[in-house]
Amino acid sequence: MPSTLLSRRDLRFLLYDWLDVIRLTVRPRYAEHSRETFDAVLELAERVATEHFAPHNRAADLDEPTFDGRQVRLIPEIKAALDVFAETGLLASTLDESVGGMQLPHTVAAACFAWFQAANVATSAYPMLTLGNTNLLLAHGSPEQIDTWARPMIEGRFFGTMCLSEPHAGSSLADITTRAEPQADGTHRLYGTKMWISGGEHELGENIVHLVLARRPDGPPGVKGISLFIVPKLLLGPDGEPGERNDVALVGLNHKMGYRGTTNTLLSFGDGAHHPAGRAGAVGYLVGEPHQGLAQMFHMMNEARIGVGAGATALGYTGYLKSLEYARQRPQGRPLADKDPTAPQVPIVAHPDVKRMLLAQKSYVEGALALVLYSGRLLDEEKSAPEPADRARAHLLLDTLTPIVKSWPSQWCLAANDLAIQVHGGAGYTRDHDVEQHWRDNRLNPIHEGTHGIQALDLLGRKVTLRDGAGLAALAETIGMSVERARKIGGETTELAEQLAAAVRRLTDVTRRLWSDGDPQLALANATVYLEAAGHVVIAWMWLEQLLVVEAAGAAAPDADLYAGKRHAARWFFRYELPRTGPQFDLLASLDRTTLEMRDTWF
Amino acid sequence: MPSTLLSRRDLRFLLYDWLDVIRLTVRPRYAEHSRETFDAVLELAERVATEHFAPHNRAADLDEPTFDGRQVRLIPEIKAALDVFAETGLLASTLDESVGGMQLPHTVAAACFAWFQAANVATSAYPMLTLGNTNLLLAHGSPEQIDTWARPMIEGRFFGTMCLSEPHAGSSLADITTRAEPQADGTHRLYGTKMWISGGEHELGENIVHLVLARRPDGPPGVKGISLFIVPKLLLGPDGEPGERNDVALVGLNHKMGYRGTTNTLLSFGDGAHHPAGRAGAVGYLVGEPHQGLAQMFHMMNEARIGVGAGATALGYTGYLKSLEYARQRPQGRPLADKDPTAPQVPIVAHPDVKRMLLAQKSYVEGALALVLYSGRLLDEEKSAPEPADRARAHLLLDTLTPIVKSWPSQWCLAANDLAIQVHGGAGYTRDHDVEQHWRDNRLNPIHEGTHGIQALDLLGRKVTLRDGAGLAALAETIGMSVERARKIGGETTELAEQLAAAVRRLTDVTRRLWSDGDPQLALANATVYLEAAGHVVIAWMWLEQLLVVEAAGAAAPDADLYAGKRHAARWFFRYELPRTGPQFDLLASLDRTTLEMRDTWF
Repeated sequence: MPSTLLSRRDLRFLLYDWLDVIRLTVRPRYAEHSRETFDAVLELAERVATEHFAPHNRAADLDEPTFDGRQVRLIPEIKAALDVFAETGLLASTLDESVGGMQLPHTVAAACFAWFQAANVATSAYPMLTLGNTNLLLAHGSPEQIDTWARPMIEGRFFGTMCLSEPHAGSSLADITTRAEPQADGTHRLYGTKMWISGGEHELGENIVHLVLARRPDGPPGVKGISLFIVPKLLLGPDGEPGERNDVALVGLNHKMGYRGTTNTLLSFGDGAHHPAGRAGAVGYLVGEPHQGLAQMFHMMNEARIGVGAGATALGYTGYLKSLEYARQRPQGRPLADKDPTAPQVPIVAHPDVKRMLLAQKSYVEGALALVLYSGRLLDEEKSAPEPADRARAHLLLDTLTPIVKSWPSQWCLAANDLAIQVHGGAGYTRDHDVEQHWRDNRLNPIHEGTHGIQALDLLGRKVTLRDGAGLAALAETIGMSVERARKIGGETTELAEQLAAAVRRLTDVTRRLWSDGDPQLALANATVYLEAAGHVVIAWMWLEQLLVVEAAGAAAPDADLYAGKRHAARWFFRYELPRTGPQFDLLASLDRTTLEMRDTWF
Repeated sequence: MPSTLLSRRDLRFLLYDWLDVIRLTVRPRYAEHSRETFDAVLELAERVATEHFAPHNRAADLDEPTFDGRQVRLIPEIKAALDVFAETGLLASTLDESVGGMQLPHTVAAACFAWFQAANVATSAYPMLTLGNTNLLLAHGSPEQIDTWARPMIEGRFFGTMCLSEPHAGSSLADITTRAEPQADGTHRLYGTKMWISGGEHELGENIVHLVLARRPDGPPGVKGISLFIVPKLLLGPDGEPGERNDVALVGLNHKMGYRGTTNTLLSFGDGAHHPAGRAGAVGYLVGEPHQGLAQMFHMMNEARIGVGAGATALGYTGYLKSLEYARQRPQGRPLADKDPTAPQVPIVAHPDVKRMLLAQKSYVEGALALVLYSGRLLDEEKSAPEPADRARAHLLLDTLTPIVKSWPSQWCLAANDLAIQVHGGAGYTRDHDVEQHWRDNRLNPIHEGTHGIQALDLLGRKVTLRDGAGLAALAETIGMSVERARKIGGETTELAEQLAAAVRRLTDVTRRLWSDGDPQLALANATVYLEAAGHVVIAWMWLEQLLVVEAAGAAAPDADLYAGKRHAARWFFRYELPRTGPQFDLLASLDRTTLEMRDTWF
């Protein structure tokens, strides 16, 4: 029976038929792996996600975390699931063997994590956050910090958070005020309040490792004066085991519309709540050099952003499959041609408008999943390509694509969830079906880890301009290679390739035009429109790439229905979706000043 | 202090400066009215909505209706608010004086109801449903039925429902199976189950008047065999007062994502639950002639559809105002030009991307409100224009526009609520702010009273084709008159008018093209794309109309900021929104078969 979380067939298509992850196993890093180990780990992920994560997805939504002033209470299924997850070792799947990892390619790991996110995005968030935290420590922590804090996280004993925002400083991290006072023993004492901290308090493991941005007194104002600290919930005793509480206190839980199983917290550092004798400060350990905090955090942030895109994709995907299942079993109405009211009703999947909603979802979620896995593939290239130039190129491309990987699925897989509700009709609006929760859960994704608008500024203001536009040039060149391959095929494939090539030209031209004036205010006024147009171009490319696989297989397609569906969804995206970019590019090219000129008093 | 429910200034602009409702008072029907009575009733609506409806909007969301097997429990604030509402007499505002009404123009009444919907859409649903029910009885009931059932509803003592859907028959009403058996005394006994019945059970008044679609044994299959019945919750005793229970039983409540204050029910008719001795059947009274039920119900349905559009608009509007208020008070970041991190933060309304989100909302919600009030104006013309030809024309135009009035706000004011959340950032995702609830509440609107896809079939399959395309011709001609006036002004206004004229030409051409093939299956395959494109054309027209008011006032604008804002929002809609229709029309003109050709096995 096919899963309604993700499609195994599609994952196989993307991983093996398209991205050819088997080819990676010739490289030393992945030499221990094979199709068999990949399949085994994918099956493990599917099974654990299906049996331990999916069953409490609704329960955690209905029974959100509570705080009795002393402890945070979560439904017990969350800890039970995470205990099973820890046993799988999947948290460390991509890590080096030297720290206990599996050295699994990121491409395959991304597919594994997608199963968990599709099954239960809120419970999955705890290990995802912990993994991001771990990766940051592995990159920037001292060997001792790695041993002390990262290893227990890898083993599933400790959990991790990232503490960036403060009540008055969310998108504007330059304005954080949490201060870190250096102590004679080399540690720091932190004082301040952190807002929107996911997983900031719970009893799921033995300890929580907060990674906290704060200012030392010797730092300049703004982002250049921010340092990064490890601040554990529990201080470690002489035996290395978690002991007395650090001065980190839960002030309160946020009550969210969705994503409810993940505690979201307001945390106070150093307010004396756990030191009744006085404001002792929260003990923190500096990571790396002072004042490098933001750059270090971006290591984690970029990973988190890709994780957000992956989560949005997984929610979109499961919503699509559930609405497809519903459409196949729900009888309602008759084809237009059939005027006989006594004829039996047909399943709604037979109606063109329902097909429209399913095709749109298919094109969004399969396109997004392709992009998410492609990002994993770039990460693998960055880590393992034999040539340094290839590694650098993969890094540049992934860096450029990151705002799109984060934001496109957050927008369009949310739109997919909206369509999944619509396919269900009134039933989709009730809590008897999953799709309404997916929609609510997914609505967080355009907000956290940098809002949609922040991603737009990142793409147009940084990524496509850095190093004289090398990022956009690399993207255009890479898409150009796909176009060249498609041009050789002829027919519809060539037509679609030309359509994509034209869109890429417009993207490049518009980028130049926007920056031609030398006025960043004007260039960035419509950054979000730019982000959205660029995103559609990238997803069209993902569809052309998939179509190329179909073309290459020809009549020898290993799964005729799947391949025919890929062709049809590619067609859909080029006919119904890519043309949306036309008016967007027109607007951008006009250097429109409507937003700039709007005055507050006119609202 | 300005309200965050609706804008008084905008309502004045639309009602007086644009639609000139004062002019209506020269007509006999409205002769008792004046600017003073209009202002008084608008103030009353605002005050009661603000003081009695808004305060429990969140409470009703958090504490949804429950059923203990005997009674439905609602939070007491709902009944308290409805008791105050009944005292205002607003339910009867548009009704004839002969039945106790105020004979208020529909245009003004629509503005009044919008206050209640913005304040609390779920509590407002009870009187809105009751009014629809009342209007149907006034149109099709016998004088005795009007006295017995409609009058107590007008007085606020009884409430009303509409019972159409059944578990296996929602969009496809042809398939309802509830049966009505004629009795010797002229009454009927009903047997069947009705699904998704809003307000189907509660203790808010003395009785509930269900209007139920059912089949008599002598009717043909399909929609032509459906009759309409009054089925009260409580039968009336010899004294005319509600007495013993009719055999109508609440089977269960639906648990919805939003709109929670409105009970939504599964009702069983004639299952003997209230007649332990046996299946006696639910006593029903035929309305009008047998087998005319669907046509009669459409009287109510069209009104309900406009009401859905109005509710969606009101939710969009209040979300816009709340996000505007938040944007004005929330400091975050600095303008791009300001590199000094120690400079004070600015309110986020100063950032172009936030202005974008507010301008988009403004263009959606003010455009939608214009359309809703314009629909009221058409209803007033239909009822009171001196010339029969004008009345017929208003009827035709409103009939054509109804699917757009229902669906455009349901789509775009939901999009506005999405943007309202985004303006709030993380705060918007919490239940500490209203906007997340508005978004959830609003999500019902593309579903109930005929889904988005059903509206599309209604527009393209019926409304624009009926009577040789007279509806579309009337619409094009009416828009053409606005275009003509705008052409005389020159400058940007003429440019926008030409842009609109071109879009109307495309709409007309595409309509002809779609039907040129004689294949309804193909013509309707992309009906939803057609609906959405037509909706954007109509809203662009609404903005051109508003711009014409601004132009006419010139330097003598009574409210310079408001008028400047209208001009700017009109500009926004033509630059950022109307161009979306280009690719939609291209797709439609291509007679695309992608949805038709998609096979179930390819998903």
